Amino acid sequence: MTDPDRFLADFHKLRSFGAAGVGKGVVRPAYGDADVGARQWLASRMTEAGLRVEVDPMGNVFGLAGAGSLLVGSHSDSQPEGGWLDGALGVIAGLELARAAKETGGPPVSCVSFQDEEGRWGVTTGSAVWAGNIEQDKADALTDHAGIALGDARQAMDTMVTGPVDPAQFGGFIEMHIEQGPHLDTTGERIGVVTDIVGIRDMKVTFEGQQNHAGTTPMHLRRDAFQALAAFNASIEERFRNVVTPRTVWTIGHVSLHPNASSIVPGRAVFSMQWRDADGDRLKRMEEIIRDTAAEVADARGMTLSFGPMLGLEPVEMDARLRGALETGAEEVAPARWRRMPSGALHDATNVSRLMPVAMLFVPSIDGISHAFAEDTREEDLVAGLKVLDAAVQRLRR
Amino acid sequence: MTDPDRFLADFHKLRSFGAAGVGKGVVRPAYGDADVGARQWLASRMTEAGLRVEVDPMGNVFGLAGAGSLLVGSHSDSQPEGGWLDGALGVIAGLELARAAKETGGPPVSCVSFQDEEGRWGVTTGSAVWAGNIEQDKADALTDHAGIALGDARQAMDTMVTGPVDPAQFGGFIEMHIEQGPHLDTTGERIGVVTDIVGIRDMKVTFEGQQNHAGTTPMHLRRDAFQALAAFNASIEERFRNVVTPRTVWTIGHVSLHPNASSIVPGRAVFSMQWRDADGDRLKRMEEIIRDTAAEVADARGMTLSFGPMLGLEPVEMDARLRGALETGAEEVAPARWRRMPSGALHDATNVSRLMPVAMLFVPSIDGISHAFAEDTREEDLVAGLKVLDAAVQRLRR
Repeated sequence: MTDPDRFLADFHKLRSFGAAGVGKGVVRPAYGDADVGARQWLASRMTEAGLRVEVDPMGNVFGLAGAGSLLVGSHSDSQPEGGWLDGALGVIAGLELARAAKETGGPPVSCVSFQDEEGRWGVTTGSAVWAGNIEQDKADALTDHAGIALGDARQAMDTMVTGPVDPAQFGGFIEMHIEQGPHLDTTGERIGVVTDIVGIRDMKVTFEGQQNHAGTTPMHLRRDAFQALAAFNASIEERFRNVVTPRTVWTIGHVSLHPNASSIVPGRAVFSMQWRDADGDRLKRMEEIIRDTAAEVADARGMTLSFGPMLGLEPVEMDARLRGALETGAEEVAPARWRRMPSGALHDATNVSRLMPVAMLFVPSIDGISHAFAEDTREEDLVAGLKVLDAAVQRLRR
Repeated sequence: MTDPDRFLADFHKLRSFGAAGVGKGVVRPAYGDADVGARQWLASRMTEAGLRVEVDPMGNVFGLAGAGSLLVGSHSDSQPEGGWLDGALGVIAGLELARAAKETGGPPVSCVSFQDEEGRWGVTTGSAVWAGNIEQDKADALTDHAGIALGDARQAMDTMVTGPVDPAQFGGFIEMHIEQGPHLDTTGERIGVVTDIVGIRDMKVTFEGQQNHAGTTPMHLRRDAFQALAAFNASIEERFRNVVTPRTVWTIGHVSLHPNASSIVPGRAVFSMQWRDADGDRLKRMEEIIRDTAAEVADARGMTLSFGPMLGLEPVEMDARLRGALETGAEEVAPARWRRMPSGALHDATNVSRLMPVAMLFVPSIDGISHAFAEDTREEDLVAGLKVLDAAVQRLRR
């Protein structure tokens, strides 16, 4: 049996690595001192639990329980300003389940903390390399915002690395995570069993017009790249209406104007266009609207248009057997206070689904807050999540 | 009489200071080596012309012809990537007029090159300090984009400084400049006599919403600061229609989103709102629309709204007598191929108008281009401008 007190104690210990000093927040970006320290501590806890520790070249830390084991985990790196739960919840739950399984002789459970899920070098790079979604060479060449190459940064874990970790030894992967959205908190439900992880499309769009003097260039002669962006934004809002569902989201989160000065008509606007949905066909229809609309705006306003490479991650359906075990567990632990729901966020499970069956469960995020020091979840809900996982693991042995 | 060949020769010599090596472009920002070198050369040419050189603490370089003289000039500093004409045209024209007046015993003409018109530390700081629009102490505390204080940078001209220059010795100020816009080039006219310099308003606006995860936050729960900016932009475009004239301009040239990441709903948008018109009442009506619209958008979208301090420069009407002399000169030199027009750009003449009557004339900018290496004007138009100035000076003696 899992031990909720030990689980919570380990959890609070983990947040001491990189504690922000603001609420329960942590600053533990991938390969930083706090992250490496946390991984060393995790490895020692795994060893104490009787697990065989292996660390692959990316710095993904595994606590292995043998062939045919279920893998449970997530990631222990954080955003530059992160919460104590994002990733850490799944890692400590995995540790506790693996430890309990060893103690009770239950079905073997291995655990894992993936590296750089928060994407200092892109997105979920640790599990992406492990799953073969990106080659190590290519990942090593990626640079963070400060220009540091991943290949250099991962040297910080060199002494821990044991070599490649064979995915064939695992029967499946379960990841527990905070919801990072408001749905469970709003409805008062305690558990979300994930049906699928939404697909994501993300690309840079550039409008290039004519940089000009903001005093002497009449409005009708301007080719203002910011105005092109504004027109594009208004037009897609309108055109998406017939295509999207209430679960669909799209975001212009990054905008860079050139030269970005108050007295100069912007000659260039580079911006990010990101959209997410659980339906691959809908993602495709949205892409068509985006490309068509941008082309029409560019034509109408004398702009040169270009698109950057499109990041595409397909929606991932959760494995029916693993998911069924989680649903049964949820009904036992929180009768009528759980729901099925898609994951709007990307997770390591997306990458791992290339290798084995995967499933996920969510616990509520208070006020839907994540990627911030204020991120939090009631401890009773954290423990409820652990119990659902435990029940599912017991059921899967049968 | 002025000498067009000598005028053009000096002009090409000036562009050798900080020559960009791209077309006729120059890189001669205020107080840089190229700028100081150019000012030393200008001072030597003034001395050779029999003028008394005085340099005030800001580094404004005067070539003085005595009490009651007309002051002619502009600025010789450039944008970080500037053209050879912006400012330099008025400076070399002033030098040639002052030199010719000395040679022929005509009415005395003094000349000037103001410092930092291009606003490494704001906008027209050299003439602003001379005219008392900003105190030297306050100007000295201003820092450029690299964090360098003006008070430190102006030490580069220390050995040239002679002391304050008394504005009471001048009967008026005339500034020749390129248009920096497309009107004259489009119509094929050769001279623009400026009626007024438009007023300018400029302020930062901030919408603060809620930073959130771009995957897990449903559209209807978002408080997206970029979307607030887009709504504001669309709304003012609509509301300005009943207020503006074809000469009115407004620009959102600077946008800064926070945290400016493709996977995060922007929590904050800071942007510049700038508007210009020759009518002070219209500027005021536009300000009301801007403030009201921003408040309505903030209310409707759950945003916190704040405004930065508003930069305000009033419209300046040109002096009727000086302007009349330029109009007569224009009709002599380019019959029926000149026009009266407002200046959409700010100039040193705006500051100098606090001290004495001012007037301006424009020559065409090819394709309306300025603040770029490609800035250019046909030499026959440069000479036409010089001749109009010359005719005006002769007329003003009578």
